[in-house]
Amino acid sequence: MIYLDNASTTRLHKDVLEEMLPYFTESYANPSSLHKLGREANNALTLARKRVRDVVKMDKIIFLSGATEANNLALKGVMHANKDKGKHLIVSSIEHESILATCKTLEGEGFSVSYIPVNRNGIIDLDTFEKMIREDTIMVSVMLVNNEIGTIQPLREVIEIAHKYGIIVHSDLAQATGKLDIPCGIDLATLSAHKMYGPKGVGALCINNTIKINSIIDGGGQEFNLRSGTQNVPAIVGMGKAFAISSAFDYGRVKIMRDKLLDRLLEIPNTYLNGDRRERIQNNINVSFLAVNGEDMIIKLSEKNIAASTGSACSSNKQHASHVLRAMNLSYEEINGSLRLTLGIDNTIEEIDIAGEVIEDNVRELRRLSPYANKYSRNIL
Amino acid sequence: MIYLDNASTTRLHKDVLEEMLPYFTESYANPSSLHKLGREANNALTLARKRVRDVVKMDKIIFLSGATEANNLALKGVMHANKDKGKHLIVSSIEHESILATCKTLEGEGFSVSYIPVNRNGIIDLDTFEKMIREDTIMVSVMLVNNEIGTIQPLREVIEIAHKYGIIVHSDLAQATGKLDIPCGIDLATLSAHKMYGPKGVGALCINNTIKINSIIDGGGQEFNLRSGTQNVPAIVGMGKAFAISSAFDYGRVKIMRDKLLDRLLEIPNTYLNGDRRERIQNNINVSFLAVNGEDMIIKLSEKNIAASTGSACSSNKQHASHVLRAMNLSYEEINGSLRLTLGIDNTIEEIDIAGEVIEDNVRELRRLSPYANKYSRNIL
Repeated sequence: MIYLDNASTTRLHKDVLEEMLPYFTESYANPSSLHKLGREANNALTLARKRVRDVVKMDKIIFLSGATEANNLALKGVMHANKDKGKHLIVSSIEHESILATCKTLEGEGFSVSYIPVNRNGIIDLDTFEKMIREDTIMVSVMLVNNEIGTIQPLREVIEIAHKYGIIVHSDLAQATGKLDIPCGIDLATLSAHKMYGPKGVGALCINNTIKINSIIDGGGQEFNLRSGTQNVPAIVGMGKAFAISSAFDYGRVKIMRDKLLDRLLEIPNTYLNGDRRERIQNNINVSFLAVNGEDMIIKLSEKNIAASTGSACSSNKQHASHVLRAMNLSYEEINGSLRLTLGIDNTIEEIDIAGEVIEDNVRELRRLSPYANKYSRNIL
Repeated sequence: MIYLDNASTTRLHKDVLEEMLPYFTESYANPSSLHKLGREANNALTLARKRVRDVVKMDKIIFLSGATEANNLALKGVMHANKDKGKHLIVSSIEHESILATCKTLEGEGFSVSYIPVNRNGIIDLDTFEKMIREDTIMVSVMLVNNEIGTIQPLREVIEIAHKYGIIVHSDLAQATGKLDIPCGIDLATLSAHKMYGPKGVGALCINNTIKINSIIDGGGQEFNLRSGTQNVPAIVGMGKAFAISSAFDYGRVKIMRDKLLDRLLEIPNTYLNGDRRERIQNNINVSFLAVNGEDMIIKLSEKNIAASTGSACSSNKQHASHVLRAMNLSYEEINGSLRLTLGIDNTIEEIDIAGEVIEDNVRELRRLSPYANKYSRNIL
């Protein structure tokens, strides 16, 4: 399989797996246990915490089950803990569904949420953001890298504006770590391991010490009383290792392959890039082929051993139009014809060449059969 | 290490690890992805769900990060979803901290919680339970097996009483599965994998279809819209395998070893069993040695390569007196001198004999040095 779905999840790195293995069957104790084996497990957590902290340079690393939980904890935890001060939250309109669905829940509880619009290139509008700020605004949440279109948001400017008004900044870094430097000044950050060759089922919320936050999962008081439950030691060890080795991931090479494939795809008539080309993460391609159904494309590519996706895999079983592409004001045809290809450090230039050829063939074939074909005046084949 | 802390966590079974491994580096896709690799991962979830369902025989299996999260989801999810019908919840006073801490949170939100007392043997009082039921009672939560003292609660009777009044029954089965048959009629059940030779970081909430429940973690809508976030495929596969092989775990043999060790310990003067002897899970010993500090004992046993615990490992880093032993009305000295030994399927009779000898030596030694020694009239050495 030529795997071009690395924004959905990545293959576990062999060095990461190797480091995890002893914690399944040798140092397998509960890190809260007082005996030697328990302390061994607890020491492993300490090392993993240090490794993650060395990358993100924030005060507290709260390990939990993944980025979705981290996003829920960040928004619900901060809004609940600060509700005496205000009930207003600002998020970008192209956040991950775990942010947007959490906002819906908070709105149901009486909180008020404003959604920062994005331009046609999928970059948030900073002026509108600043105008949205109210007396009772507690927090803003803007992802550094969008999961569907790969755009890099102006997070430094968001932080600067927010801090001018005393507003807490949360950023979902799930798609950014291992690929980009993290700007200073973030108050809370969401991390994922499985988007960067670490294991599934583990992530972190990083929190600076000044932030007031409530837990959403209560119990034994693990993780600084912010996330109860026996820690998933092997996965946390794996996450620590992934962060420790992430600076060696060669995304320069990934970007060269991405650019080659992207340039080739853009030569196909009536094909458009979604999202800014320059302010874009190294491994992301999101293109729309007019008169092609993206899901048909994925099925056809899968038959030819190429793994790709439309929109976010996290919701691709829901079969609704991408909220990101809608926020960018794309037409239904553009959204319907979108294809996301996200490269990884394991891809080879040979794979990229094959993928380009197969995709081109499929676009041609699908357009021949498309009911939309006649809608376009130009020759779309 | 002679590992006698299996109620805290267990060593991953080698067959479970073997079944998990391909999902780290081969079938590693996101189960929500539409391509072949994604469908492969999704099929693995389906098999795991079937394997768990075959054991618990309930409608829906919601995979999540562990028993603590499952207990939070059960209580918060059901109370929130049914708050128009009532705000009263009943739980036993010896539930796991993830239940009791969740109750505190619910009380803070305006819900009302009643705590069923237990007798001196750590068994809940059914008459008191029935008298606690009010017009606005929504739910009762009683664990099948207590994690500290191993007592088996009269869950069948709880279900019978609750259903007579139309009350929803939740039960935390974390310590019970793999060891006991699950009674019919539970409406929601909490499962853990790592207490039964499965991996950490995964558990399930089983829910019958008639139950109204809200999610606590929102996002992409995975797990029947009740638990968003990319599923932890390798861990879920491991949990399925652990449930599939659990009927082969020889707890008859474990019980023989437990009884041998328990009988030997009870021959030490001024040593008392905590919790009912008959209504007790096969692998649990919880004894109090008067004039001994339980934590000193654990440190000394650890030096001699024996892993044991006081109270629940989930809170043993908190250093407070066990709420379970307090609910049983034990004296401070009895609580202070308590030791929990929880055997597992990997233990051998040789280990048990060594453990008995080492513990006896340590009781003698610690009592010689104990400031409490003079408090007891009888010869405690």
